[in-house]
Amino acid sequence: MKQLNIGIIGAGRIGKVHMRSITYSVPTAKVLGITDVYKEGLQELADKYGIEKVYDSYQDMLADKDIDAVLVCSSTDTHADISIEAAKAGKHIFCEKPVDLTPEKVKAVMEAVDKAGVKLQVGFNRRFDHNFAHIHKLINENKVGNLELIKITSRDPEPPPAEYAAVSGGMFLDMTIHDFDMARFLAGSDVTEVFVNAACLVDPAIGEAGDVDTAIINLKFANGALGVIDNSRRAAYGYDQRVEVFGSKGAAFASNDTPTNVTVMNSEGITTDKPLYFFLERYMQSFRDEMICFVDSVLNDKPTLTTGNDGLNSILVALAAKKSVQEGRPVKIAEIG
Amino acid sequence: MKQLNIGIIGAGRIGKVHMRSITYSVPTAKVLGITDVYKEGLQELADKYGIEKVYDSYQDMLADKDIDAVLVCSSTDTHADISIEAAKAGKHIFCEKPVDLTPEKVKAVMEAVDKAGVKLQVGFNRRFDHNFAHIHKLINENKVGNLELIKITSRDPEPPPAEYAAVSGGMFLDMTIHDFDMARFLAGSDVTEVFVNAACLVDPAIGEAGDVDTAIINLKFANGALGVIDNSRRAAYGYDQRVEVFGSKGAAFASNDTPTNVTVMNSEGITTDKPLYFFLERYMQSFRDEMICFVDSVLNDKPTLTTGNDGLNSILVALAAKKSVQEGRPVKIAEIG
Amino acid sequence: MKQLNIGIIGAGRIGKVHMRSITYSVPTAKVLGITDVYKEGLQELADKYGIEKVYDSYQDMLADKDIDAVLVCSSTDTHADISIEAAKAGKHIFCEKPVDLTPEKVKAVMEAVDKAGVKLQVGFNRRFDHNFAHIHKLINENKVGNLELIKITSRDPEPPPAEYAAVSGGMFLDMTIHDFDMARFLAGSDVTEVFVNAACLVDPAIGEAGDVDTAIINLKFANGALGVIDNSRRAAYGYDQRVEVFGSKGAAFASNDTPTNVTVMNSEGITTDKPLYFFLERYMQSFRDEMICFVDSVLNDKPTLTTGNDGLNSILVALAAKKSVQEGRPVKIAEIG
Amino acid sequence: MKQLNIGIIGAGRIGKVHMRSITYSVPTAKVLGITDVYKEGLQELADKYGIEKVYDSYQDMLADKDIDAVLVCSSTDTHADISIEAAKAGKHIFCEKPVDLTPEKVKAVMEAVDKAGVKLQVGFNRRFDHNFAHIHKLINENKVGNLELIKITSRDPEPPPAEYAAVSGGMFLDMTIHDFDMARFLAGSDVTEVFVNAACLVDPAIGEAGDVDTAIINLKFANGALGVIDNSRRAAYGYDQRVEVFGSKGAAFASNDTPTNVTVMNSEGITTDKPLYFFLERYMQSFRDEMICFVDSVLNDKPTLTTGNDGLNSILVALAAKKSVQEGRPVKIAEIG
Repeated sequence: MKQLNIGIIGAGRIGKVHMRSITYSVPTAKVLGITDVYKEGLQELADKYGIEKVYDSYQDMLADKDIDAVLVCSSTDTHADISIEAAKAGKHIFCEKPVDLTPEKVKAVMEAVDKAGVKLQVGFNRRFDHNFAHIHKLINENKVGNLELIKITSRDPEPPPAEYAAVSGGMFLDMTIHDFDMARFLAGSDVTEVFVNAACLVDPAIGEAGDVDTAIINLKFANGALGVIDNSRRAAYGYDQRVEVFGSKGAAFASNDTPTNVTVMNSEGITTDKPLYFFLERYMQSFRDEMICFVDSVLNDKPTLTTGNDGLNSILVALAAKKSVQEGRPVKIAEIG
Repeated sequence: MKQLNIGIIGAGRIGKVHMRSITYSVPTAKVLGITDVYKEGLQELADKYGIEKVYDSYQDMLADKDIDAVLVCSSTDTHADISIEAAKAGKHIFCEKPVDLTPEKVKAVMEAVDKAGVKLQVGFNRRFDHNFAHIHKLINENKVGNLELIKITSRDPEPPPAEYAAVSGGMFLDMTIHDFDMARFLAGSDVTEVFVNAACLVDPAIGEAGDVDTAIINLKFANGALGVIDNSRRAAYGYDQRVEVFGSKGAAFASNDTPTNVTVMNSEGITTDKPLYFFLERYMQSFRDEMICFVDSVLNDKPTLTTGNDGLNSILVALAAKKSVQEGRPVKIAEIG
Repeated sequence: MKQLNIGIIGAGRIGKVHMRSITYSVPTAKVLGITDVYKEGLQELADKYGIEKVYDSYQDMLADKDIDAVLVCSSTDTHADISIEAAKAGKHIFCEKPVDLTPEKVKAVMEAVDKAGVKLQVGFNRRFDHNFAHIHKLINENKVGNLELIKITSRDPEPPPAEYAAVSGGMFLDMTIHDFDMARFLAGSDVTEVFVNAACLVDPAIGEAGDVDTAIINLKFANGALGVIDNSRRAAYGYDQRVEVFGSKGAAFASNDTPTNVTVMNSEGITTDKPLYFFLERYMQSFRDEMICFVDSVLNDKPTLTTGNDGLNSILVALAAKKSVQEGRPVKIAEIG
Repeated sequence: MKQLNIGIIGAGRIGKVHMRSITYSVPTAKVLGITDVYKEGLQELADKYGIEKVYDSYQDMLADKDIDAVLVCSSTDTHADISIEAAKAGKHIFCEKPVDLTPEKVKAVMEAVDKAGVKLQVGFNRRFDHNFAHIHKLINENKVGNLELIKITSRDPEPPPAEYAAVSGGMFLDMTIHDFDMARFLAGSDVTEVFVNAACLVDPAIGEAGDVDTAIINLKFANGALGVIDNSRRAAYGYDQRVEVFGSKGAAFASNDTPTNVTVMNSEGITTDKPLYFFLERYMQSFRDEMICFVDSVLNDKPTLTTGNDGLNSILVALAAKKSVQEGRPVKIAEIG
């Protein structure tokens, strides 16, 4: 069996997660080299995982003909440009979400990818989560019947610094974008209209930075189903990631994952664990499985599960959500871009 | 202690529930008499519960000076007129929901009640439900912190006949009205704006009758909290009645009540009971406790928990919800009535 | 339909429970009269429930030919003698558990009942509990397959006064006797052997009074199944009443009942209600349903669900358990009585 | 930091598990070489995990001075002899459970280890399980109060072949031995007496081979606590691994781990996942963490968590359990060996 040679661009938190996943859990792939704009500790990292090459720049990596595919894990504003260059260099691409904050640049990436005939997978890891993938399977096996309602609860344990609100594109493009993709994934259908009630209830500084921290987001899907997402930037009990789908045959819902399944019974009540703390703990299995999928799609020429089109559509929904808040009305996706 | 003499107008399903509750569970009250437009079986019913008087008409009942209070359990279109006459006759009033389908008539009832100086309690029994009352208490004890999100799931086991859609005023006035009252109760604040995504996904005949059977309803409250209700007229697994509140200190949610707490583990999975079938099974305790509250409010001159104002506001929200569906936009309560 | 005239002997806690159940929930029966060795408040009680007669003594009650059946709710040491007299007077008998602390007197009651041709039901109310009755039904419907293991957890919220240990006959005859009956009921088979590990871990005064407060009790059943009961006189989280059955097709277990189904999620964890506090709260439904069964068995000449034989066998098992603790070895039921 | 060079003796199922854990999850250790009596596929396995050396025999491995420690993963009957030789060769030892089926040979291993001054860890992996380790922690933090009851449910999904019963030493030495160790671990105290009710209810062939497949096992601990283990060789719903501890402040229990946290609600009921299928799925995390502990204990000269003494005591309890079944009486551990 051929082994895929992968280069990782950006060795921050998520880059390291993929480094580890591929090295330990994807026998059909190998991290051949890494690069980062920050050089400190890079060689030590390479040594730790037995990575042969440390490139001075991503351009050097793209020029290396031994590299089959790259993971774009650099800062968001560089995703699109690097992806386009990688496509031109004939490399298969795994790009972290969001591909870009503008539909135009996402489309440019998609065109470059199409032209080059390379694979593109976008980092919507939650599709690979054991709970949500199981719900998707139940829907596809018609265990839920005709899908009528999709409900997603997605709450962070703590708000980001207010200054992050600006650079990240705001809550919808940064945080809810995962939920938009999940909603589309479960619905098996595109979103046609968005209406949002949002507020700044957690941290006034977020509001001053022009963002919201609490929202109820309504979705209409092309297939007639209705959806609703509720977001908060701060849940006192931790990272709350639940999904419920409802249809003609019944419902299915995913509860939170917890560190243990231990229950304590005492004079205070009957108490179980809070959810796993945050996305690294909660979604580690999905980060691994998205790598397995990506490598498999390249080696065996299969479609990826999270395409450029998925990347694009989630951004369109996020932009419609922003517009809905600004204008206080339902916004059709067709109005965007 | 004085015992309150109660007359029940309307001996249908809900009238019988109150007959039983008062006779067996409210030692401070007594069902002195009953009346109904359908005479068949009325005397047998009176005998069964040891009720002294069977009146030919509600007018006769109102003319009986031994009657202290009446329960208006007749058909919805008669609630307001009977309540007004009862107020004029100096009787305290428990009126089933909705008081009327128009705000004007509800206001007329409220005026008559004010003028007569009698008590009025509206039949929003769910405020007395053990689960929801406990959540209300947790909010009031500041266990949830500042309230930010209120989520209500309310799904019936089976749709009503389509012809019922017309006479009942539609899903929002007939079914969701309980959820509107619950939302206001938990928020401790009035609804200021409504936006609805609704559809007819369960039974096309309901759509042909001009109603919807599936909806996601967004609420803005005067205190800044956001709310969302999801409704379906048909849940394959039964009567689904859940509530979740979320605030700065955490969240609380009420799961469904079930016939037993038995779990079966076999080769199919780990299975527990479906919810209690429908509202009579599910809310029997609350029907009893609303009677205890009503009798207490009259005997001890306390405010009722569900006032004419609550009856009025729920109808305003329901009408705003209808308008939102018709016009595809958020509707302010101030636009109604 | 004939209405059964019932006399209640003993108007203490449990006598009042039955008074209420029959008056409000058993339309086919009526509490015709009551009696008690303590006269204070007896007439007020009769007035409250509309009971016609207050007898000076149980003998007077038994002499009243209008009385069809009696409930023996007096102190344990009087159960057997009163029951025998009642049988001789031709009254049907509901006798609280235990019938007596000695097998001889229980047998004497059974003989008197047989001779008189009256019904005898023993107050093992838990057979009527919604959870345990459902597990019994699952077993009978062969949902569990061949029964192999029966596990009962039965823990009180607080220990009784140590002086109670002596008069009650000790933990096995007073508390565990309910579990012995439940085990026999679920097994559908008699116990043949008992082995107990017991200790005094909760209150040294109980040990000084010659009793234990903590025990693990092993049962062998005639049909080959194995059983285990664990008891404690003090559970910090309240009244713990769980059952698990295991067989060739799977398992079923009954969790505790709780005041509400509300879950609170905060920085401390995810917390639900403690169990309903004690037996009156926990088993009220079963106290009502055992009355319905008793009245039905008399009126329609059906067998009772908890017979004199059940009363006798539970005592034999309890005595074997005591002997096992004393002698530190498994004891066969055949060794007792 | 020094990296520990490990040799694995026996490359069967559990040997492979450790190979993988060390290679991917223990950066401070390295599998330097492997050996097995079956040579087929051994080199391929070494290649897969980048293992340098494949030895012809374990003797060759023990003679290699580059090897710091060995994992004894060979067949049970060879554990003790290999461990003794390894100790003599100055290698630290991780030995799979049981060390031997006789106390004499376990003691011989302990003596050899003591004399050589090497570390010995026994493969009681469950002590490292996230659920059970958390319960242990709660006990140590005095969250449960004085420990009074320990209950372990341990049921396999399917019985082993009957012929396995003989060679494995029977259910108590093969399967329950894990539960005995868990009971001792949680109690923080040695077992002093055992009483067993056991039967062959699952597969008659197991009975013919002289073993049992269903048991309720009672334990007395030196500290006064009482324990009970229930075992079955076949649970229709899968691998059932639960623990409950009860004390003066309350209780804690560990429920089963499941593949997902998804609940399905349909007309059949409310259904969640069956437990993870068997020990490899269920305990993978603990297999990894026991390796981390072993390597840490060697590198940093710390005590191991599961010592030779733990290995010995579990065997003593298992032998007492066998004797209890044979003689139908409680057996003191002091009677054994």
